[in-house]
Amino acid sequence: MKTKDKILITALELFNSTNTQAATTNHIAAAMGISPGNLHYHYKNREAIIYALYAQMQAKCFPDPDFVPSSIQELVKSHNHWSSVFWEYKFFHRELLFLLSRDESLKAKYIENNLHHKERITKMLNDFHDKGWLNLPYDNVVTHVCDIIMVFTQFWHPYLETMGEELNEYNLKGDMRRIEGALRSFMTKEGLEILADIER
Amino acid sequence: MKTKDKILITALELFNSTNTQAATTNHIAAAMGISPGNLHYHYKNREAIIYALYAQMQAKCFPDPDFVPSSIQELVKSHNHWSSVFWEYKFFHRELLFLLSRDESLKAKYIENNLHHKERITKMLNDFHDKGWLNLPYDNVVTHVCDIIMVFTQFWHPYLETMGEELNEYNLKGDMRRIEGALRSFMTKEGLEILADIER
Repeated sequence: MKTKDKILITALELFNSTNTQAATTNHIAAAMGISPGNLHYHYKNREAIIYALYAQMQAKCFPDPDFVPSSIQELVKSHNHWSSVFWEYKFFHRELLFLLSRDESLKAKYIENNLHHKERITKMLNDFHDKGWLNLPYDNVVTHVCDIIMVFTQFWHPYLETMGEELNEYNLKGDMRRIEGALRSFMTKEGLEILADIER
Repeated sequence: MKTKDKILITALELFNSTNTQAATTNHIAAAMGISPGNLHYHYKNREAIIYALYAQMQAKCFPDPDFVPSSIQELVKSHNHWSSVFWEYKFFHRELLFLLSRDESLKAKYIENNLHHKERITKMLNDFHDKGWLNLPYDNVVTHVCDIIMVFTQFWHPYLETMGEELNEYNLKGDMRRIEGALRSFMTKEGLEILADIER
């Protein structure tokens, strides 16, 4: 494996097990048995490592940036995938706001991706409404459901932490169950039958 | 005003306008024109100041720790009050997870308060159901609505930030509008009429 890739793997382990402030570039270099100079040749500072890890996480979630689930089955499958990726990069959502406050370029990229994500969710909700699976008669209902999805996606992990819940993989996947619960209130009979079939 | 109180006011201003990492105890002392030694006489470190500000915010939100709104009118009024307090102490929710990760005693207190808060919300939801304003036929629906309320309360401010929205007072109060929107899906005809009366 290339040093550049190994730095990311080591940094990810340290960030997940402690936090980004405790794990300095010196700690990362020491954990790999390389010199700080060698590390800095590949990444000029810790922010550059965090940015690269975020880009990696985003690429794993959306290999196609314009992907929108076109069925309830595909949505549930995607939820499982996104949950696993979020678990793998768990430091990121845990420290989200702090990380964004420390790096303007990360913040700008994150907001850009997030606005694009909101467009995708809106598109999916309108599509599911047109297909007769959801009943979202007004634009403000679409916006409301979209906000619930975005908030649960981004802040579920922090929420568990503030409730003293253990941060294991099962609990973490609760975000997607909660999103499905929120969608359920707006589902038509047909949509609910599809969901029941998946859960069977 | 006592020095001890003035330290909190100055720290709050600095934390809100920058962040808790940029505003060291030396910066706070300098902004007040007192010596670092004088500051440390009152608060042994920055964590002690943050803890005191959190306790202050909590006391402003819940002068009576067991308060539960007993009507929709009282809930809406409380929402407005809590929004204003959250705006006043905006650094806290912005950095929430980071702050909890740095101070075990703050985290323990926060979780304790949060679990108590969840009990209060559950009590209110069951009461509104019994009074015929909400229709929450199963315990898991109560839990689901409770999670939505808790997540919006704690992470609305961070959410706005991740959407590139301006953090002004109007936007910040959107959390309570979103909670009311979430409750609306579960309201009976009678509950909706009460809410319409308030909004008129």
